Amino acid sequence: MAASGLSGLDLTDVAVRAGVGKTTVYRRWGSAANLVTDLLSEMAAESSPRSDTGSLSGDLHANAALVYRTLSDERQGPLFKAMIAAATCDRVTASALEHFYDTRVAEWAPCVTDAISRGDAPEGTNSESAIRQVSAPLYYQFLTTTKRLTPADAERAADAALAAIAAGLFRN
Amino acid sequence: MAASGLSGLDLTDVAVRAGVGKTTVYRRWGSAANLVTDLLSEMAAESSPRSDTGSLSGDLHANAALVYRTLSDERQGPLFKAMIAAATCDRVTASALEHFYDTRVAEWAPCVTDAISRGDAPEGTNSESAIRQVSAPLYYQFLTTTKRLTPADAERAADAALAAIAAGLFRN
Repeated sequence: MAASGLSGLDLTDVAVRAGVGKTTVYRRWGSAANLVTDLLSEMAAESSPRSDTGSLSGDLHANAALVYRTLSDERQGPLFKAMIAAATCDRVTASALEHFYDTRVAEWAPCVTDAISRGDAPEGTNSESAIRQVSAPLYYQFLTTTKRLTPADAERAADAALAAIAAGLFRN
Repeated sequence: MAASGLSGLDLTDVAVRAGVGKTTVYRRWGSAANLVTDLLSEMAAESSPRSDTGSLSGDLHANAALVYRTLSDERQGPLFKAMIAAATCDRVTASALEHFYDTRVAEWAPCVTDAISRGDAPEGTNSESAIRQVSAPLYYQFLTTTKRLTPADAERAADAALAAIAAGLFRN
């Protein structure tokens, strides 16, 4: 899938590479989109737990660094590109991908609610929106340019989200 | 293309819908990716000129509103999705898409350089990066969720970019 996208993913090839009979693969998933749905729930469940550094800045920088590492990874980067591309024209994949991000955002949202309790973020800040703001510039660069992401991009993504949170822009 | 993506775009169909001979279309473009490249340069050239409201806030809100309208448009929204998806697996399209965004960012960058001259943005702010920050959360939501963008999302995208600019995060 990373090599040729969802449309290039053939369940028969998957069976060959997994060394199992193709009936097994077809009976279990039926379509490439269903297989990707399972892959995404597994990735959501197994992905790194949120940080708890004691400061909102420390936590959001850790989140940005994780997104940077994921998108820059030789295997995961192309995989995410392929899944996002597939989601644009396949509803099953779109809903699985949305669920993946919802799960990851829910994992990291307590960084913001803890910060509110500490007085480190404005009362009423929507923690999900605040966490998504960290990823936004990294994904935008990843998907609309051919420039490689750098650790400095991740630093700035975290700092920009912190500035927007401090300005009260994510209050409901 | 909006209906079925770049891989579903057949030059013979294009010729039929345009009411011209298919040789004309093949001789002019040769491949669907080349046709999309021309489409993107035309879109970049014909897209709305930048705002000049006299304030950075006014200009960035106008930029965010334009991105919102484009991505929410019944025809342009699916077209951008299809082009971004195609860019993930086709180098010609990726480079045409990057050139499209570079052109649009260059059109709007003077909003930031003018703001610097007026003392409305920190000295040394990278105008291109600042403009891209406005689009980022809108594209991120557009591509990774099934939630429709709202005018409030555009307002917040502009305000978040303004907060990050004021914090000096786009200084070179």
